[in-house]
Amino acid sequence: MKLARYLPILDWGRSYDARAFSNDALAALIVTIMLIPQSLAYAMLAGLPPQAGLYASIAPLVLYAVFGTSRALAVGPVAVVSLLTAASVGRIAEAGSLDYVTAALTLAFLSGVMLLTLGLFRLGFLANFLSHPVISGFITATGLLIAAGQVRHVIGIEGGGHTLIEIGRGFVENAGNVEPYTLVIGVSALGFLFWSRKGLAPLLRAVGMKPGVAAMVSRAGPILAVAVSIVAVEVFNLGALGVALVGEVPAGLPPFTVPSLNGELVGALLSSAALISIIGFVESVSVAQTLAAKKRQRIDPDQELVGLGAANIAAAFSGGYPVTGGFARSVVNFDAGAQTPAAGAFTAVGIAIAALVFTPLLASLPNAVLAATIIVAVVSLIDLGALRRAYAYSLGDFAAMSATIALTLLLGVEAGVAAGVLISLGLFLYRTSKPHSALVGQVPGTQHFRNVDRHDVITAPDVATLRVDESLYFANARYLEDRVLAILAAQPGLRHLILMCPAVNEIDFSALESLESLNRRLKDGGVTLHLSEVKGPVMDRLKRSHFLDDLTGEVFLSQYDAFRALAPETAQRALDARRPDICPNAESAGLDRHQTTPGPGA
Amino acid sequence: MKLARYLPILDWGRSYDARAFSNDALAALIVTIMLIPQSLAYAMLAGLPPQAGLYASIAPLVLYAVFGTSRALAVGPVAVVSLLTAASVGRIAEAGSLDYVTAALTLAFLSGVMLLTLGLFRLGFLANFLSHPVISGFITATGLLIAAGQVRHVIGIEGGGHTLIEIGRGFVENAGNVEPYTLVIGVSALGFLFWSRKGLAPLLRAVGMKPGVAAMVSRAGPILAVAVSIVAVEVFNLGALGVALVGEVPAGLPPFTVPSLNGELVGALLSSAALISIIGFVESVSVAQTLAAKKRQRIDPDQELVGLGAANIAAAFSGGYPVTGGFARSVVNFDAGAQTPAAGAFTAVGIAIAALVFTPLLASLPNAVLAATIIVAVVSLIDLGALRRAYAYSLGDFAAMSATIALTLLLGVEAGVAAGVLISLGLFLYRTSKPHSALVGQVPGTQHFRNVDRHDVITAPDVATLRVDESLYFANARYLEDRVLAILAAQPGLRHLILMCPAVNEIDFSALESLESLNRRLKDGGVTLHLSEVKGPVMDRLKRSHFLDDLTGEVFLSQYDAFRALAPETAQRALDARRPDICPNAESAGLDRHQTTPGPGA
Repeated sequence: MKLARYLPILDWGRSYDARAFSNDALAALIVTIMLIPQSLAYAMLAGLPPQAGLYASIAPLVLYAVFGTSRALAVGPVAVVSLLTAASVGRIAEAGSLDYVTAALTLAFLSGVMLLTLGLFRLGFLANFLSHPVISGFITATGLLIAAGQVRHVIGIEGGGHTLIEIGRGFVENAGNVEPYTLVIGVSALGFLFWSRKGLAPLLRAVGMKPGVAAMVSRAGPILAVAVSIVAVEVFNLGALGVALVGEVPAGLPPFTVPSLNGELVGALLSSAALISIIGFVESVSVAQTLAAKKRQRIDPDQELVGLGAANIAAAFSGGYPVTGGFARSVVNFDAGAQTPAAGAFTAVGIAIAALVFTPLLASLPNAVLAATIIVAVVSLIDLGALRRAYAYSLGDFAAMSATIALTLLLGVEAGVAAGVLISLGLFLYRTSKPHSALVGQVPGTQHFRNVDRHDVITAPDVATLRVDESLYFANARYLEDRVLAILAAQPGLRHLILMCPAVNEIDFSALESLESLNRRLKDGGVTLHLSEVKGPVMDRLKRSHFLDDLTGEVFLSQYDAFRALAPETAQRALDARRPDICPNAESAGLDRHQTTPGPGA
Repeated sequence: MKLARYLPILDWGRSYDARAFSNDALAALIVTIMLIPQSLAYAMLAGLPPQAGLYASIAPLVLYAVFGTSRALAVGPVAVVSLLTAASVGRIAEAGSLDYVTAALTLAFLSGVMLLTLGLFRLGFLANFLSHPVISGFITATGLLIAAGQVRHVIGIEGGGHTLIEIGRGFVENAGNVEPYTLVIGVSALGFLFWSRKGLAPLLRAVGMKPGVAAMVSRAGPILAVAVSIVAVEVFNLGALGVALVGEVPAGLPPFTVPSLNGELVGALLSSAALISIIGFVESVSVAQTLAAKKRQRIDPDQELVGLGAANIAAAFSGGYPVTGGFARSVVNFDAGAQTPAAGAFTAVGIAIAALVFTPLLASLPNAVLAATIIVAVVSLIDLGALRRAYAYSLGDFAAMSATIALTLLLGVEAGVAAGVLISLGLFLYRTSKPHSALVGQVPGTQHFRNVDRHDVITAPDVATLRVDESLYFANARYLEDRVLAILAAQPGLRHLILMCPAVNEIDFSALESLESLNRRLKDGGVTLHLSEVKGPVMDRLKRSHFLDDLTGEVFLSQYDAFRALAPETAQRALDARRPDICPNAESAGLDRHQTTPGPGA
């Protein structure tokens, strides 16, 4: 039982049969065809030799198949992580140098160890603190940066850089040196790839292909562009005319490599590794959950950390670089019928064959075609509409998103994410430090209590009831103190204060001390403190302290019990009063909600 | 109106009269007598010349009187902040050097600017993130460190250090060099001071003094010890016999001093200044609130930041060092009848007179007596019982508190607080990332819905209702997704899922996207998503998004409406069933709480 949790392969492997095999194998074939150009392109984006992309698509996939829980997630090099790799490794070593390759291996190793550690300690919840606006803003900004950075390959000029400013400077300085043949190839590839995403499938259907098959074959657009451009280069000898080519790629299976554990290097890569781990994890889990839900399956996010961790460690020891689950690739895998993680292992076999057999052909592949592949892939990441939606919904979330986008574009990926996380956390902490609470009074003709600011309710001059709508913990305990002390100062005739706790799921030690201090302060001010509607588990815990012994007042089962005991005449008068027509039925009104705006379905 | 908020003196100053004056003046006299030995002692603790303590008790008090909102808070040098000053400035400069004094001024200035900034931007809530266990553990550990550090002055040996280990090493190395006369003076002073706290007042009452007056006069214990020891030193010429004395203290009003704004110095002091600001603020506000509640007054925490900020800036320009509100001193001020912040200004006048007139006498004051004063003052800060109470109440809070104590004692004050804050925030984030939620069913014979795990309720096989007990935001949105997807995977016949939202006060943009994604995923799985009991403001905000248009199901006013619409036969059967005897009355049961454990008062 325990072992199967950490080795999901024991679970799905038991019922593996010929049908699952044929489904997985077909899906693997299609993903392989899609993954070959992508892995070459993303390796280029990461500043690594093209074979690193292929190597990162072999061993990691096998390890994920053993440890991962998603039945459709396709792991490998992806655009955002490749950019993050380039940005962090580029600070430390010269692109093309051995140090650069070693740093990328180390980055994968660190990222793997982090993911594995988070998974084993079940700390996946930490990723929750990357809010959606921050992730979405970051992905959009990264997509823009990647696309902008690849344009130079498409038009054949020098340049580079990790921020919009650096990239822009590169354009301005090199604008005069556009390489005409590269430009023709690049723009043609770009045009073809954009068209093939929408136009190839209908065309194939028009010539009689079945819709499902047409959709799958249309995924071969990139590999078609690669093949055609290689032939064109060979036929017209474009390499000699100045078109930048991939060059010699060694044929063979992934080498055994060892990441460096040099202290200085590890220190320099640590924060990037953390960023890559978390961003990669969040994206993977999101894709995996979406696909699992379609088949009413589940994935275990903590086990996903283990699976991705193992995949990255495998990448580090087999000449790769950081990997994670890819969105488009996983959808293709799912649509093609992948039934188990074995599909990933079969994809690894496909890529391994490609690495053994097809690599000599890649020497004549123009970089411009790979760049076009990248641009087409990342354009789907850019979602500026989210900015508009966030603006319409919540200014705080909009601020976090726009800061993340702006700082990622202008200062780089790490500054962008850091700013977004800090803004999100700051807003979150600010909100939680002010718990929702309301002074309530009795609704005439009922035993219900509602917000005095929203309803025509009956209160007593010497009794105040504060309904606390959230759990109490250190972050908001002091605010509750302030609120109660303000009531104390504002209501001179006050003799009893009731804290109504229907939504209090927890009272931590700080909040307990706040309550104790409130009890003493109210006592000094001549006011008795009571509680009502305290939940069972909260009550059990309070009994483990001296609070209930020292409490000046009582704990009442219901708020009405409390009010009847402390202001019997007012309570009776309120109960006898004519009931206003605000409650659709007697009992749901007992829920004491500010349900004045009926839902559209009501 | 606005001006009076930032200048509370405009408020209380308007009704200031002779009666208030005489009350304030009397309180000021008593606080002055208490403050003279304390300010000298705390300056010694901070590693500064004794007059710095007097100077820090003049201008800062006047500024606090203008800007502060507490009518009883007595501001000045306090033990914990003095230790923090010594710890941070001691890293940068040699005690006794001019650089040391300048660094202390700069620290006060930085702390003042920080407090003022927090106050003007109303960021006082940030202090809430220092949980009670962390503060309490930190104060206890600091008290232990201070007491341990002062013992060497009492017995007359060399030594020093900012951690228990350093202090312990000092003892071991110098244990053979105890100065016998110092030991006699120190131990006598210590004994007298400890006795006078409890024994002096009863003695005075026994000789016929009124209880109130006796309590006040007993506060003069420390100044009595100071006076007697000065006389003893003069009479027996103890200075020549080897007793360490305070030495020459220049007479006069505070000098005009200027803090250094050297970048390196500021950088080195920044984190200490932040710590001093927050710790000082938290302690001040807690004392001020306690005293204000006794008279049903209020203090404004954000304006307190302004008041304390102004006080610290004043300290920086008048030869002082960081100040804050002192606990014992404020209680004395309050008990002595202080009515307005003017009492603080009058205290400043008293200290100024002392600085002009009495300083020549202080040359013969033994350090051992000041050390004894400090030890007696800080012993009351040590509260190891809190550790036991936290342990009984909550393991997480206990962990935060014990880590803070252990690391403060062993590694120093900053490491201790940092560890405590990180543990508290970590636990807080962990808890909030898992929102309280429960699958609910209909209570037979009612229209109420309760937790299926705790009550004998009726559910339908194709309808699941998840009650969400907390607001939804990015930190817990993903957990809700997981929970719902688990229900989807576990209940194969599911056709409708209702999210019951009575306790949801807010849905942020991340949670909105989670709901949208849940809606899509459930749709893919053939399940319709409904909401019930959504609060008005939350509904208003949802209307600003496309969520309600895309929602596969409906929004119901009450949970019963939802259940009746989706499972009409089950709902009717449940309503007709015999009602179990779990609800004391029909309507409070409508609150749908797990109220199975009645409170002691019910």
